[in-house]
Amino acid sequence: MSDQTDAPASPACLPEPPYYAVVFTSVPTDTDPDGYQRTAEHLSRLVREVPGFLGEDAARTPGGLAVSVAYFRDLAGIERWRDHPAHLAAKRRGRERWFERYAIHVARVEHAHVFARE
Amino acid sequence: MSDQTDAPASPACLPEPPYYAVVFTSVPTDTDPDGYQRTAEHLSRLVREVPGFLGEDAARTPGGLAVSVAYFRDLAGIERWRDHPAHLAAKRRGRERWFERYAIHVARVEHAHVFARE
Repeated sequence: MSDQTDAPASPACLPEPPYYAVVFTSVPTDTDPDGYQRTAEHLSRLVREVPGFLGEDAARTPGGLAVSVAYFRDLAGIERWRDHPAHLAAKRRGRERWFERYAIHVARVEHAHVFARE
Repeated sequence: MSDQTDAPASPACLPEPPYYAVVFTSVPTDTDPDGYQRTAEHLSRLVREVPGFLGEDAARTPGGLAVSVAYFRDLAGIERWRDHPAHLAAKRRGRERWFERYAIHVARVEHAHVFARE
């Protein structure tokens, strides 16, 4: 997100539904926030190479909840990313160090609406 | 969120899928942030009274994107909330004043997974 020239649009520009959304909500521990941040940025670059990945929206309240939503064309794309070695390793490290709690919701987007100021 | 005794758990505690998620991603303007904040807190209390509402996860990166996810039992609950007069009025004011851009995704959650540190 720090590299303006490389930064994706926010909110993500997406095709017409149906597509899939993976909602990831997490409460961090106090352990190794820099390591988590570096890993999150690395994963955010890697996921863009996954066939079927459409975009991502993410926000983090300082000292509180983080919510990220990754959009995929289909469940096959989600499975590719779920099984990606770097992602698997990060999830393991996350459970060991970075997350107090988290939840993942895999959902099929049926309707979408976008507003942009003129 | 400021009232600890009244604050919902984060991430939201939810039943087994299927249920629905409404993902709302927004980029604010610089206009009237206090008014927006007050309205957002008011809506966050109102939505808890809507039949079918299950919970909410929200995060906001300072100066950047806000992502909130409201969970509902079914589409009927989402429609009740979509048509709530206070919500309709807030959306109109949002398009006039508070939002540069936003997107809404209505999605059916098919799988979910939760982690909590012991």
